[in-house]
Amino acid sequence: MSREVVLAARPVGEPSESDFEIRDAADAVPGDGQVAVRNVFVSVDPYMRGRMTGVRTYVPPFELGQVVDGAAVGRVELSRDERFAEGDWVLSTLGWREAGVASANGLRKLDPSLAPPSTALGVLGTPGFTAWVGLVDIGRIEGGETVYVSGAAGAVGSAAAQIAKLKGCRVIGSAGSAEKVAWLEELGIEAFDYRATSLRDALADGIDVFFDNVGGRQLEAALAALRDFGRVVACGAIAGYNDVEAQPGPRNLAYVVSKRLRIEGFIILDHLDRYPVFAAEVAPWVREGKLQYRETVLDGIDAIPRAFAGLFHGDNVGKMLVRVGPDSLT
Amino acid sequence: MSREVVLAARPVGEPSESDFEIRDAADAVPGDGQVAVRNVFVSVDPYMRGRMTGVRTYVPPFELGQVVDGAAVGRVELSRDERFAEGDWVLSTLGWREAGVASANGLRKLDPSLAPPSTALGVLGTPGFTAWVGLVDIGRIEGGETVYVSGAAGAVGSAAAQIAKLKGCRVIGSAGSAEKVAWLEELGIEAFDYRATSLRDALADGIDVFFDNVGGRQLEAALAALRDFGRVVACGAIAGYNDVEAQPGPRNLAYVVSKRLRIEGFIILDHLDRYPVFAAEVAPWVREGKLQYRETVLDGIDAIPRAFAGLFHGDNVGKMLVRVGPDSLT
Repeated sequence: MSREVVLAARPVGEPSESDFEIRDAADAVPGDGQVAVRNVFVSVDPYMRGRMTGVRTYVPPFELGQVVDGAAVGRVELSRDERFAEGDWVLSTLGWREAGVASANGLRKLDPSLAPPSTALGVLGTPGFTAWVGLVDIGRIEGGETVYVSGAAGAVGSAAAQIAKLKGCRVIGSAGSAEKVAWLEELGIEAFDYRATSLRDALADGIDVFFDNVGGRQLEAALAALRDFGRVVACGAIAGYNDVEAQPGPRNLAYVVSKRLRIEGFIILDHLDRYPVFAAEVAPWVREGKLQYRETVLDGIDAIPRAFAGLFHGDNVGKMLVRVGPDSLT
Repeated sequence: MSREVVLAARPVGEPSESDFEIRDAADAVPGDGQVAVRNVFVSVDPYMRGRMTGVRTYVPPFELGQVVDGAAVGRVELSRDERFAEGDWVLSTLGWREAGVASANGLRKLDPSLAPPSTALGVLGTPGFTAWVGLVDIGRIEGGETVYVSGAAGAVGSAAAQIAKLKGCRVIGSAGSAEKVAWLEELGIEAFDYRATSLRDALADGIDVFFDNVGGRQLEAALAALRDFGRVVACGAIAGYNDVEAQPGPRNLAYVVSKRLRIEGFIILDHLDRYPVFAAEVAPWVREGKLQYRETVLDGIDAIPRAFAGLFHGDNVGKMLVRVGPDSLT
C-alpha cells in the first residue's frame, strides 16, 4: 500500500491544497522489463503549473483525477529487468507518489558514491542541465561578460549563476530574501534583494546576458541594461505562471532593434543530446565543491501541495524537494 | 548656389514642417580627393526619426542647425579624384541637400545601364539589403516556411516579401490601403489590409517567421501565430517612432519559452560585408523583373519634410524619394 497525489481541480491563480487529493494506491506488480520503485525524493517544479491548466503546450496537460507525474528519485524494490537490482538508486518520472512501477527503459541508475542521489533532481538533473544549456547553447556566454540571473537562489538560478562564474563571467543575481542574498554572496555572486533594491541601480553597470527565470518587470529592467548584442535567455517566467489574466510586456522592446538584442526561449527536452557534455563538465565541479547547491526539503507526501505552492512564494532556497520515504529500504 | 534642409527643432511626436528649415548654401569647392555632386534623388527613411530625438543609439543623433544627412543619388559635377569623372552617377551620404562636396572614399559609382540609379536608394540599396539580411542571416528562412511581413508595401517590406517568395516560402503581407494590397497581390503575396482585417484571422494558418517593420500590436498577433521554433526578425517599429510615451509590449511573451521562439534585432550597418552576396543574388532578380519595386517620388527640396512625415502615415507605396534635381547636368 502507498499513497499518491492526484490533480483534483485545475488551479485558478495560485495553486491551493484543495486542487490536489492524496489517495491510497494498491501496490502494482512489475511485469517483464519493469521495475517496482519506492520513492525517496519527489521533485516539485515551476513548469508543472503550466501542465495543470489543461492547455497543450510543449508537453501534454495533466489530466484531472490522475497522478501528477514528474521527476523522482527512489530505490528499486523489485526488478524484472536485468539492468536493475533491488536496492539500486534510480531517477524516474514516477512523480508525486510514494511508490510505483516503471518501465526499466525510462529509468536512469544513479551512483550514490559519486553524488548524493537527490542531486539528480537538482544541480545534476534537469535544473542544472537547464542552467548550462541556457548559458552555453542559448546565451553563448563568453568569459569577461556580465551575466544577470533572476531568481538566482532557485534551483536553476543558483546553478546558472555559479556556472557563469566558473566560466569567467561577472555575475549579478537577484533573489527575494536576505538569507538568499547572503548565500549568493558566499558563492561570489553580486547579489541583491529585488524587493529592497531598484533593479535599475543593481544593473547600472550594464549586462551582456540576462538569464531570466522570472519574467515580468525583470525583463524591462534587463532590456534597459543590456549592452549592444546582448542576449536574453528566456528560461521561465514564474512571476506570471499564476496570472489569470496576462500582463502587458515591457515598454522598451524597441531596444531589441537599436541594441541588436536576441531574446530566445528554450525547453530542455529539445536538448537532451547535450546531457553527456553537461555532465562531463559540471559533475566534477560539484564533486570538487566548486559548484555548490542547496535543497529545501519538506517531509511526507502530504507536504507536496504545500511545497509546490511555496515555489511561487520563493519559499525555497535552491531546489525544492519532498522526502516521501527513508533512504533505506525497510 | 543650392538649398539644403536643416533640423530646426527636435520633433515631439509626429514630425512637422516647422521642425525643419530650408536654407541657401554657398557652393563648396572640392579639394584633393573630393568630388562635387549635384543630387538627383534624396532618400527619406523611417530610421531618421530616431536620430532626430537627440539620443545616441547605434548612430549619433542629428544636431540642431545642421543638414540632415542620409543616402542620396546624384551626378558628379567636378571631380578632384581619379576614380570619378564629371557626369558619373554616385551614391553618397550627402542627404537632404541639392548639392554638396563629398570625399571620394565615401562614394559608390553607379552604372545606369544595369539598373536605374534611384534603385541604389531602394531595392538595391539599404532597404533591399536590409530585407535580405533580415530574412537570410537573422530569420534564416527555409523553403516551404510561411513568412509574415508587416508593412509589406514599404521599401523594406516589399523587398522582403518578394525575396521570401523567390526563396520558396509562402508569404503573407500586411499593408494599409486597398491600393497597396492590390499591388502585393499582383506580386503573388497573400496580402491583407490590417485596417480592415483581423490580424488573428489573417494569420490563422500559423507562421514560421515574422519580419517586423511595424511593431506594436502586430507583434502580439504574430507571437500567437508563430509555430514552434519560430523567429521574429525585428527590423523596425515604425508604429512607435513618434510615441512620446512608450507603449506596453505584448501580453503573450510567455510564448517565447513555450514555443521556443527567437526574437532578434539587427542593424544593417553591422552586416555590410554581406553586400556583395546580396547584390550577386538580388540584382539579377531585379534586372529580370522577378523582383519588382515601386517608388513614390515627390518633387523639389521643399517637399522633403512632407515626404518624411508621410512615411508615418503610409503615404508611400514602395520607396519614398524626393527628386531634388534633373537627371541631366545642365
